[in-house]
Amino acid sequence: MSGYKTAQTQTVRAANGINYDYRSAGLNLMPLVLLQHFRGNLDNWDPALIDALSEHRRVITFDNTGVGASTGRTPHTVAEMAHDAIEFLTAMEFDRVDLLGFSIGSFAAQEIALVRPDLVERIVLASAAPQGAAGMHGWAPDVIGAVGQPETSPEGYLSVFFTDSPVGLEAGQAAAQRIFGGRTEDRDEPTSWQTRLAQYDAVSAWGIPNHALLERVTAITQPVFVANGDSDRMILPRYSHLLAGLLPNATIKIYPDAAHGFLFQHHEEFAADVTEFFRR
Amino acid sequence: MSGYKTAQTQTVRAANGINYDYRSAGLNLMPLVLLQHFRGNLDNWDPALIDALSEHRRVITFDNTGVGASTGRTPHTVAEMAHDAIEFLTAMEFDRVDLLGFSIGSFAAQEIALVRPDLVERIVLASAAPQGAAGMHGWAPDVIGAVGQPETSPEGYLSVFFTDSPVGLEAGQAAAQRIFGGRTEDRDEPTSWQTRLAQYDAVSAWGIPNHALLERVTAITQPVFVANGDSDRMILPRYSHLLAGLLPNATIKIYPDAAHGFLFQHHEEFAADVTEFFRR
Repeated sequence: MSGYKTAQTQTVRAANGINYDYRSAGLNLMPLVLLQHFRGNLDNWDPALIDALSEHRRVITFDNTGVGASTGRTPHTVAEMAHDAIEFLTAMEFDRVDLLGFSIGSFAAQEIALVRPDLVERIVLASAAPQGAAGMHGWAPDVIGAVGQPETSPEGYLSVFFTDSPVGLEAGQAAAQRIFGGRTEDRDEPTSWQTRLAQYDAVSAWGIPNHALLERVTAITQPVFVANGDSDRMILPRYSHLLAGLLPNATIKIYPDAAHGFLFQHHEEFAADVTEFFRR
Repeated sequence: MSGYKTAQTQTVRAANGINYDYRSAGLNLMPLVLLQHFRGNLDNWDPALIDALSEHRRVITFDNTGVGASTGRTPHTVAEMAHDAIEFLTAMEFDRVDLLGFSIGSFAAQEIALVRPDLVERIVLASAAPQGAAGMHGWAPDVIGAVGQPETSPEGYLSVFFTDSPVGLEAGQAAAQRIFGGRTEDRDEPTSWQTRLAQYDAVSAWGIPNHALLERVTAITQPVFVANGDSDRMILPRYSHLLAGLLPNATIKIYPDAAHGFLFQHHEEFAADVTEFFRR
């Protein structure tokens, strides 16, 4: 039996003194490194998505500084998260990677490409937004209300990650079963309240309206695949269009009847699109 | 026999002393006013598109100041074109309209919505870009080379408005036959070299890179339908995504295997989409 559900958790010590927990799946090719969503750890990646991606790639998931079982304190800015991720990549001796950033992980992916462009070959931005876009500051009250409580709940998670259509409800139940019901041993540490506070600080700072900052991403010259669900209330699809318009070398796809968890819901189609993007 | 091909050209004198030539088609409802592309006059609207739109709407086409048979001198800024269009709308006694701006006409439509917001109910932006977006200044050399010569040519027109795929070539031939072979009487005056120079000045000024100006369109609160062809080389589809990301209330559709003339090529589908947009 193989696949992400049983992939062994490993640890690498980086030069900044942090022990980063990570998992590796798939073929021994140039790594595709995944950057996780708000409050997510290694277990929060849908195994079905990782398995589909790792049919064609070596896929690396990791807990950034302070997240899950990785040591240290979660920083409160996207810029520091990016630098911490670079510490991990350096410790892994990766000198060239593809990145797939999801939600707050997509913010970190943009920042990594901006501060260490030589490290990044291609980028997938899932449910992303550029720093400074107006209208996204701190997320909608019902969204942060659903996923920002001290104790997370399946209902809150499902309400943000999936639509309430029959298709969305079924997809949410199936994904939750894969994510929360799949792995029984070697599970990650839950993310802490410190991580929640620090990540939300970073998300809020990223969303301070400042149209001058939109120009930042025009410096990302790598090929970028921008993707989102058509009904994402956490990070609206309009910000994916904004990115696709600002980035000099982007393609975009919006997935139907899907919210923040579109890449879990449409895991086969999304993985095929990502694989095709990397082939181009 | 009816339809745009035989719609009578009429003239209205505005308070600025300009005689505006226009044509009207369809039902006597709130007007949908069309703003024409670079160097285009009343005859350059595809009759098949106008007929499809006017099944559900009163559609007004007009020559802005200095264009075709309208009197005056074509201004060299989008802002002045917008003010001139407002003079025409005022002379027509329209106090509330929907706008459909195509190419340079989409620039004027944005400007009208910004300086006279109460006049505009809803907006369709076809092959559009916001002022200040980087990378579009003056169009690509082969594009302005194809459509910017003193004498226009069918080859130049087709190369910019349609793709060179089998589907695009066939669509281009069919559209050109409808546009240039349809109307035999009461044709418009050709646009002048003065119009070409002034409009290109305006296009070039609109495309001076200035990311701070991107914020302008965030003030357009009306519903907007942004549309383009996937292969438009004159105004790249990424600028439609940029608009859809900046505008607070926009939807977007990109039409397949189509270039600048996507709305002529896909006239039935586009008219149906526009009609559906106005129904929402």
